[in-house]
Amino acid sequence: MNEIELIERIRKRAGRCSLVLGIGDDCAIFRPRAGEDLLFTTDQTVEGIHFRRSAGAATVGERALARSLSDIAAMGGEPRFCLVALAVPAKHEKWIDEFFRGLLRLARRSGTVLAGGDLAHAEKIYCDVMVCGAAPRGTALRRDGARAGDALFVSGRLGKSWNQPIRPRLAFGLALRGRANSCIDLSDGLSLDLYRLCRASGVAAELEHIPVASGSTLERALHGGEDYELLFTLPPQGEPPRGSLRIGCIVRGKPGHIRWQDRTLPPRGYDHFQKPAH
Amino acid sequence: MNEIELIERIRKRAGRCSLVLGIGDDCAIFRPRAGEDLLFTTDQTVEGIHFRRSAGAATVGERALARSLSDIAAMGGEPRFCLVALAVPAKHEKWIDEFFRGLLRLARRSGTVLAGGDLAHAEKIYCDVMVCGAAPRGTALRRDGARAGDALFVSGRLGKSWNQPIRPRLAFGLALRGRANSCIDLSDGLSLDLYRLCRASGVAAELEHIPVASGSTLERALHGGEDYELLFTLPPQGEPPRGSLRIGCIVRGKPGHIRWQDRTLPPRGYDHFQKPAH
Repeated sequence: MNEIELIERIRKRAGRCSLVLGIGDDCAIFRPRAGEDLLFTTDQTVEGIHFRRSAGAATVGERALARSLSDIAAMGGEPRFCLVALAVPAKHEKWIDEFFRGLLRLARRSGTVLAGGDLAHAEKIYCDVMVCGAAPRGTALRRDGARAGDALFVSGRLGKSWNQPIRPRLAFGLALRGRANSCIDLSDGLSLDLYRLCRASGVAAELEHIPVASGSTLERALHGGEDYELLFTLPPQGEPPRGSLRIGCIVRGKPGHIRWQDRTLPPRGYDHFQKPAH
Repeated sequence: MNEIELIERIRKRAGRCSLVLGIGDDCAIFRPRAGEDLLFTTDQTVEGIHFRRSAGAATVGERALARSLSDIAAMGGEPRFCLVALAVPAKHEKWIDEFFRGLLRLARRSGTVLAGGDLAHAEKIYCDVMVCGAAPRGTALRRDGARAGDALFVSGRLGKSWNQPIRPRLAFGLALRGRANSCIDLSDGLSLDLYRLCRASGVAAELEHIPVASGSTLERALHGGEDYELLFTLPPQGEPPRGSLRIGCIVRGKPGHIRWQDRTLPPRGYDHFQKPAH
């Protein structure tokens, strides 16, 4: 199968397309709706770092899209379309097929159109998924809006296992629009992502209670990555969406400083650029 | 240097930003202008395939962006912003710095804002650059608009060396807007890219004359990749922009069929999914 045939196969399965022009030209053409802001995020999935070859290709494809969709959820956006860049070793046509089967299953479920991408060869499997989402002008949730006095919540229990399916919290993110002062998705662990939110907002936080997922540990709930729940703050009288779990509050203090059980909680989550712990 | 510090360094150099929100949140926020279509393209640059480690990092960064900008040029678009996904081995902070120096130099020259991206570790260097461009509604050039009777042009001589700098033909693409019936950029060689244009348009082509770059060969001009000139068609009375070189015409016939010197010219350019020639 050559590149033209392969792209034709993927195009046939990309489904009904709300774009002016989808797969098959130098660029995809998208016509924005009036009054909408567009949200853009991109996430890499690297063999040996984010998955092993033994993981099914469909699972890898689904997770690759899910990670970017989680960023759209964290901004309170609705996904519109994605671009998928994929590099694989030679003779991986079947793997590619399965990868797109998994990715397109989640794309359909979430209303994301596959608008285009790029195929290349590489020794190890590598992919990068860009997602464009949309939100009414000025309503996107940001991580820099937390204020002292805000209550701090998560959208579900923390410390889940790394290899369970990622369910991007898109509906939850929509429910937070117009309510939350700030939001971030928990991709790298509570301690690190809360640190990022507090730094961006110029505030500190006090943790009161950590809801640990069944079968997990407090340590994993505090510092483990890949939860993909939303972490958000509401003003004092704000009403949290159903399913929200209160974990603490935002206070004045050194930006990024987090208190937990009368001590400082250092940001120890997954930093993609720190050497692995020895 | 950890991820937060590294992103802060890149952000400081990303320059003035026309975005609502740039680097540093879960998504970048872009507010589209009324009456514009948006163009999206993504291109991978893989170590060992598109470059060797010995190539300077700044050159790799500049070329990675240039390849995507060439796709924007081929649609007659103006670049707006880019997302850059980059995976490198550990201890490559200096390489990353140089990579972004080269990329941002071209970004500034071309009016492209660095809106965000993703950093990860990998054994080999890998990057993926997504560019968003814009064109007034309905004016983007496509590869499916060539008609029998059109004259066929390129924007410059062909067969240039693979390691010379890529100069995306953005101004040339703008000059083609409202004039050209179809356009594609020559990234994989004339024979393959012309085949793609003819297939998309449902037409055939006859080549008359191939303008070979100084020091190159006819073989390389016909089948070599990485020229990054524009290949386009104009209606019979259309006036080509200054610098255009006529190479043939579009005719009725089997879609994708190309005649050259009374023979069929097979598409033999660089197919990213064919095994390398033995």
